[in-house]
Amino acid sequence: MIIVMASKASPEQIAAVTAKIRAAGLAEHVSCGTERTIIGAIGDERALTPDMFELMPGVERAMRVMKEYRIVSREAQPTDTVVRVRGVPIGGETVQIIAGPCSVETPEQMALSAAAVADAGCRLMRGGAFKPRSSPYSFQGLGVEGLDYLQQAARQHGLPVVTELMDVRMLDTFLEHDVDVIQIGARNMQNFDLLKEVGRINKPVILKRGLAATISEWLMAAEYIAAGGNHNIIFCERGVRSFETAYRNMLDVTAIPVLKKESHLPVIVDPSHAGGKAWLVPALAKAALAAGADGLMVEMHPNPCEAWCDADQALTPAELKALVGELRPLAQALGRNL
Amino acid sequence: MIIVMASKASPEQIAAVTAKIRAAGLAEHVSCGTERTIIGAIGDERALTPDMFELMPGVERAMRVMKEYRIVSREAQPTDTVVRVRGVPIGGETVQIIAGPCSVETPEQMALSAAAVADAGCRLMRGGAFKPRSSPYSFQGLGVEGLDYLQQAARQHGLPVVTELMDVRMLDTFLEHDVDVIQIGARNMQNFDLLKEVGRINKPVILKRGLAATISEWLMAAEYIAAGGNHNIIFCERGVRSFETAYRNMLDVTAIPVLKKESHLPVIVDPSHAGGKAWLVPALAKAALAAGADGLMVEMHPNPCEAWCDADQALTPAELKALVGELRPLAQALGRNL
Amino acid sequence: MIIVMASKASPEQIAAVTAKIRAAGLAEHVSCGTERTIIGAIGDERALTPDMFELMPGVERAMRVMKEYRIVSREAQPTDTVVRVRGVPIGGETVQIIAGPCSVETPEQMALSAAAVADAGCRLMRGGAFKPRSSPYSFQGLGVEGLDYLQQAARQHGLPVVTELMDVRMLDTFLEHDVDVIQIGARNMQNFDLLKEVGRINKPVILKRGLAATISEWLMAAEYIAAGGNHNIIFCERGVRSFETAYRNMLDVTAIPVLKKESHLPVIVDPSHAGGKAWLVPALAKAALAAGADGLMVEMHPNPCEAWCDADQALTPAELKALVGELRPLAQALGRNL
Amino acid sequence: MIIVMASKASPEQIAAVTAKIRAAGLAEHVSCGTERTIIGAIGDERALTPDMFELMPGVERAMRVMKEYRIVSREAQPTDTVVRVRGVPIGGETVQIIAGPCSVETPEQMALSAAAVADAGCRLMRGGAFKPRSSPYSFQGLGVEGLDYLQQAARQHGLPVVTELMDVRMLDTFLEHDVDVIQIGARNMQNFDLLKEVGRINKPVILKRGLAATISEWLMAAEYIAAGGNHNIIFCERGVRSFETAYRNMLDVTAIPVLKKESHLPVIVDPSHAGGKAWLVPALAKAALAAGADGLMVEMHPNPCEAWCDADQALTPAELKALVGELRPLAQALGRNL
Repeated sequence: MIIVMASKASPEQIAAVTAKIRAAGLAEHVSCGTERTIIGAIGDERALTPDMFELMPGVERAMRVMKEYRIVSREAQPTDTVVRVRGVPIGGETVQIIAGPCSVETPEQMALSAAAVADAGCRLMRGGAFKPRSSPYSFQGLGVEGLDYLQQAARQHGLPVVTELMDVRMLDTFLEHDVDVIQIGARNMQNFDLLKEVGRINKPVILKRGLAATISEWLMAAEYIAAGGNHNIIFCERGVRSFETAYRNMLDVTAIPVLKKESHLPVIVDPSHAGGKAWLVPALAKAALAAGADGLMVEMHPNPCEAWCDADQALTPAELKALVGELRPLAQALGRNL
Repeated sequence: MIIVMASKASPEQIAAVTAKIRAAGLAEHVSCGTERTIIGAIGDERALTPDMFELMPGVERAMRVMKEYRIVSREAQPTDTVVRVRGVPIGGETVQIIAGPCSVETPEQMALSAAAVADAGCRLMRGGAFKPRSSPYSFQGLGVEGLDYLQQAARQHGLPVVTELMDVRMLDTFLEHDVDVIQIGARNMQNFDLLKEVGRINKPVILKRGLAATISEWLMAAEYIAAGGNHNIIFCERGVRSFETAYRNMLDVTAIPVLKKESHLPVIVDPSHAGGKAWLVPALAKAALAAGADGLMVEMHPNPCEAWCDADQALTPAELKALVGELRPLAQALGRNL
Repeated sequence: MIIVMASKASPEQIAAVTAKIRAAGLAEHVSCGTERTIIGAIGDERALTPDMFELMPGVERAMRVMKEYRIVSREAQPTDTVVRVRGVPIGGETVQIIAGPCSVETPEQMALSAAAVADAGCRLMRGGAFKPRSSPYSFQGLGVEGLDYLQQAARQHGLPVVTELMDVRMLDTFLEHDVDVIQIGARNMQNFDLLKEVGRINKPVILKRGLAATISEWLMAAEYIAAGGNHNIIFCERGVRSFETAYRNMLDVTAIPVLKKESHLPVIVDPSHAGGKAWLVPALAKAALAAGADGLMVEMHPNPCEAWCDADQALTPAELKALVGELRPLAQALGRNL
Repeated sequence: MIIVMASKASPEQIAAVTAKIRAAGLAEHVSCGTERTIIGAIGDERALTPDMFELMPGVERAMRVMKEYRIVSREAQPTDTVVRVRGVPIGGETVQIIAGPCSVETPEQMALSAAAVADAGCRLMRGGAFKPRSSPYSFQGLGVEGLDYLQQAARQHGLPVVTELMDVRMLDTFLEHDVDVIQIGARNMQNFDLLKEVGRINKPVILKRGLAATISEWLMAAEYIAAGGNHNIIFCERGVRSFETAYRNMLDVTAIPVLKKESHLPVIVDPSHAGGKAWLVPALAKAALAAGADGLMVEMHPNPCEAWCDADQALTPAELKALVGELRPLAQALGRNL
């Protein structure tokens, strides 16, 4: 922690700051400049917070020197984590594409979807049984029945499944249904009780970025899961809220290299929710891989025009297959497989 | 719903759109302009969504004409709702100030807090027993014990209490502890399962705005609660995320008159979390009242320097009392009481 | 400047940083913590920039300790500046309201406008002769002819005039027309050549905040003007760009107390451009005064429905007069006059 | 234009709207829904603006149906524009990389820079002689002398030059120095007088996106240039302002496919100013190409540690060469050359 004193801080005010540093078990290092005195707190600064000091008389501001995340940090583990989902590696050389419909609708729709996902060469399947909808009057998902349809269809093609958990009370049901990857949605990125619960199990977790979460907050949300003992965490960038109205969310590709530098965990991207339009998906998918993403999560529906939600962002089976075909040489040019 | 066709849309494409409108039980009204054909869907457009049309060939875009919120809308109820909390009205002529510490710490701290809140002339007390913290290593609140301390201190002065609920599983405990107002925090504004649960009870709910939630999303979150039967909802603006780094969040005072126009529900403001600094609270509190807020939620701590969280945003008891003294003539100049 | 070294920085890397500090004429102060070494540069840090250090091997980041603005800073001048415009003080006890139409249209419209501005009790008049319009096909203002109409109408009522300068080449014309206050619009806040030019004259300047300018950038833009010798600067907050679509810009009331703390210059607010709707103006105007603004700039048109631009944000003469009537007791409750 | 009437609009209010539409030379089409009446204005809606209607009694809102940009729109010209700079095509099959230092410093620095740019295989050179700096006390560029150094160094290697114009009064000097491409910087994107001036010449113009400009505003800024007769416009995305503090600006890759859909003009990306850090440039450069950019503008300095500005975002000559080497197979995988 670095504490910058105001230009006219008195010796008593400086002494009060150093006393507080010592009381927390750290040592101080006082540097008297020509215009400001700066005090460094030496030791484990996790015992301190900036606001412990910023309210003290004569203090201008206090800044952390250390990052607050530990387990998920690259400093804690220099090598990349590869999360394995029933044998499918996420992170590492091979880029993975998770595909499937926004919401589970019917057994037929899911059977067609699973066949299309497998046919396109994707190795994991997604589908929402519980849907976070901004309106209480919109379709809220099939619920537990949806988990059944999803698993039945996916197992037929040997595809592990990814589905979103919104309510802590449903976690046991998810485990009973042997969901392979639990997705925590953007709106729940800081639902700390939910994070703590998925931290207690050892299923892989896809942690989507909050609508306007900073990368630092996102890393701390992952730290909540990791602190519980579950280190099988995959970040998923899905666009953030911005002033631009030409598309839904602003895909933050810069977050990818930043996460890779700060953390050892894999990073995937959801180009479908980012742009919010099917025609934007190919460009965003390519940009994500080029920026270093370890995978993609793409919406596909056997018949987008008839989809029960987010119809205009779903690819058709043919479009998904074409996209995978375009991504393969791109992955190779980037030194990866797909 | 208005559907704007692309400039070269074919008669077949226009026919497909009108067929889809009819299939949903509405009628169409086709308007052929010189450059575009525009189709209006006449009837209850809640049966339609823009993405039902935007994926169809020849469609440029589709726009809702109606707002999606119903129960909470000013159209549904032209007169202002006054939410009564153990006799204290929120909304209406009298401005209410809810004050208290960020987190419940000790019985002594709470006794001092409650005395200071009452002494300042505030009629409700706040205090957090369950704290949403960005770090898993930060103090997470005292939990149930904190609810006890809060109630014991507040009841001594006849103050109804406001406290945050983060986890659906704790709702029964909140009811057993007779919490007077349940606060839904910014990070849970779109935790739809939590919203549904507080919609099933009849306790007043303070619904804080999400970190980057639009006013429309916020109204829809309130609609989730209202749709369950609980209409005792109070909006709380607490600043939104922005590019500015000189303070914590950007207080959106414009949201106040917009909410008042769109909804009949009361609106309060939290100037403490907005600015994130105690010295900003008076200016923001005044701006909030002047913009039409029905009340304030202000952080106060008997000894801010020793507060266990958010120390730099808490007022001292003397500062709170002085602020209330300054707000009283302001409220009168605005035609209200305090 | 504080330079934080990476956790594994070598002694050579530390030595290179201290050598660079000394080369710039400053002294270093090295603080070896348990996890990081921190180096303080002691002396006038204006000779340094963070990026001088951030590219050096072993450096994690570098941070300024001092603010970059000097002349406009509260440290440089603790007392409030009062800018006098032909006898009318801006800043200080009396709140000033500048009113008038968005654009100068005709002599008749300006005569009616000036009469209405004076009748409402406002002491300065605004009107645009050169208009920054997002479309090249929109009305661009009457130009020099507009300056004539503005002055003729305003002088009739003894009102000093405020009008926007967009092009350095028009500065002489503005001086010849004896424009009383030159407005630099939001889109030109960082048009540095324009700032330098208005820094060379001694006319008062209203400096509007850029669409997404930080307060620090805004202060630095004012510093450009002040560095040229012109200290008659008035900040004008006019809302910033945000994700919210319910209104035009997000009025940043928190900027008012922050500017007041950081600078001695007066601050006014433009509630008309902020909200973009006439019905929002009263609430925003009140919020601005309550937050500490020294004045307002309000759009008024004798017949808003017929205005040539921004029709939906202009007040009628009667609405302006009613607003001033509501603001007067508010100003008094805030300890000011109007 | 579509005008949505309020739910209780009277027949007189509807009649007033239709009268206004007819007065502007268009025809109306009235559609009476069950809850709202919707009026379409048929004809050239460029004669109308939404605020002409939104202030009228009984009108809820008015929306444009047509885009406001014409010459730069894809509708106006379905085929891609290729801008030729002394024989070098921008747009089309070949991806171009413009490289060079942030600012022109000395003849030696420029000679080394030009040699490195050519050696890396780049075909155009950049360098700033006039620098927009947020502080008046920072180095403002060498000015005209810088233009000389830039041209002398670049011509040695047959490289056309790109440099920023900030002040309309310098345009003649730019033409005399035979600057090949005039760059309009982010801070001047809506400096409309400057746009009009570069619209009157026939030199290629790189138009950088404003710090928080919407894509629509950016297209309109280009339309200002095009309306003057100069159609040699190249868009340059350079990141926008966001809430994220882990890097400088948020690179908006989604803007690339959106611009390509809306306009026929070429689009390049500046990964250096976007991320603000040299280590981020490769990932962002790749993402930009993958998203469909026609080129890049990259900062390179013979000795970044000694650069006079933006030192931490400049690549070394070796890093630039390595980057071009990595981009070549990527471009091929995307079906383009480099």
